[in-house]
Amino acid sequence: MAEHRVRVPALAPQMILGPREARHLHVLRLRPGDPVRVFDGQGAEASATVEELDDTRAVLALGERVAGAAETPQPVTLAVALLKGDKLADVVRAATELGAARVQLLVTRHADAREIGGQKLTRLRRVAEEASKQSRRAVTPEVLDPVGLADLTWEGQLFVAQPGSRERLTEHLTWNAPVTVLTGPEGGLSDAEVAALTARGAVAVTLGPRILRAETAPVALLGAIVATGV
Amino acid sequence: MAEHRVRVPALAPQMILGPREARHLHVLRLRPGDPVRVFDGQGAEASATVEELDDTRAVLALGERVAGAAETPQPVTLAVALLKGDKLADVVRAATELGAARVQLLVTRHADAREIGGQKLTRLRRVAEEASKQSRRAVTPEVLDPVGLADLTWEGQLFVAQPGSRERLTEHLTWNAPVTVLTGPEGGLSDAEVAALTARGAVAVTLGPRILRAETAPVALLGAIVATGV
Repeated sequence: MAEHRVRVPALAPQMILGPREARHLHVLRLRPGDPVRVFDGQGAEASATVEELDDTRAVLALGERVAGAAETPQPVTLAVALLKGDKLADVVRAATELGAARVQLLVTRHADAREIGGQKLTRLRRVAEEASKQSRRAVTPEVLDPVGLADLTWEGQLFVAQPGSRERLTEHLTWNAPVTVLTGPEGGLSDAEVAALTARGAVAVTLGPRILRAETAPVALLGAIVATGV
Repeated sequence: MAEHRVRVPALAPQMILGPREARHLHVLRLRPGDPVRVFDGQGAEASATVEELDDTRAVLALGERVAGAAETPQPVTLAVALLKGDKLADVVRAATELGAARVQLLVTRHADAREIGGQKLTRLRRVAEEASKQSRRAVTPEVLDPVGLADLTWEGQLFVAQPGSRERLTEHLTWNAPVTVLTGPEGGLSDAEVAALTARGAVAVTLGPRILRAETAPVALLGAIVATGV
């Protein structure tokens, strides 16, 4: 379960809260020793531990600082088919800036599995790390080893970019559950691949009637997500 | 298979192309009687048939006109600050795929005007032409000579990407009037520049709390637009 989030005036080694906040922590059934998440509303966030708790005050001990305001309210995964040459690096870099928590590489019918190897994976992970620094994220997206489409699992919502679809991302997207967006390789996903995904609950969404390059679609789709303000 | 797309100066009952285009059609292994798609770069598009083809010329016969289905309901202009190196080419390519009707280059406080010259402009225009073919658009976006921010004029709505804004593009965007989206250079727009634009009616919109590279922001913002289905 996610830790309870407690707003504090400022992060400090020891944070003392008044009776009102103490009662709130009581209601949450917290006890000394329990972990909480503290944030100052200005983007600083940290783990903390309840040290003392009675009717008049709560004392919290600061733990490690964690990524705060730069993260989306639910994790966003980009599932992207293997692309030729250095295009995946560009996609991983942009996806990191756009807040993706995870990049899942995919082998699809038209994606060449020879396009990936240990060295390329290492490079993609380095790209994600550099991009997370540059975009001031404290979280570096994981870049996960490629899986076949049939082996892809997801939690929450899956949106697949599909030319010709009339469904709009913004009419389906909610922030009550994790989000995965999926885009195909240079040759596109096959109709059967898209059908198999929608049969499993994916929503095929439009990015307009034009043909997008495989490296443009993920940036456009993640752009549509961040334009909602996350 | 999709028909080959051939750019012609204008649609006419009989279209005669010179040696360069004739060679191109040869390379595509086209023969008299084969169908092609012709477009004039201004939005007019039609089916056509190869009538004659030799080393010196090609003659195409006009067939039925087709709707420019790949265009947005109102023209979308991307106003983008000059960027270093070859980044503008990437932006123009993606903007073309994402349906921009026009790319207006901008000189801003932190954009280096030395980054543009006649040769680079010519290259950007060629990139727009190639990308419009690949994305099956009948319209090639114009790439307009750079202007200063104060000299930028626009019709309809102007959205400027501004880190820290809480306004959402999708809550302001309408398709009753032309749309311009504006993004800054590597160093960002200055607060004064954004204030001057909003004083003239621009809406500063969010792309989330992360720092985007100057070449990612326009793709993300145009992605949010096309995700509305246009």
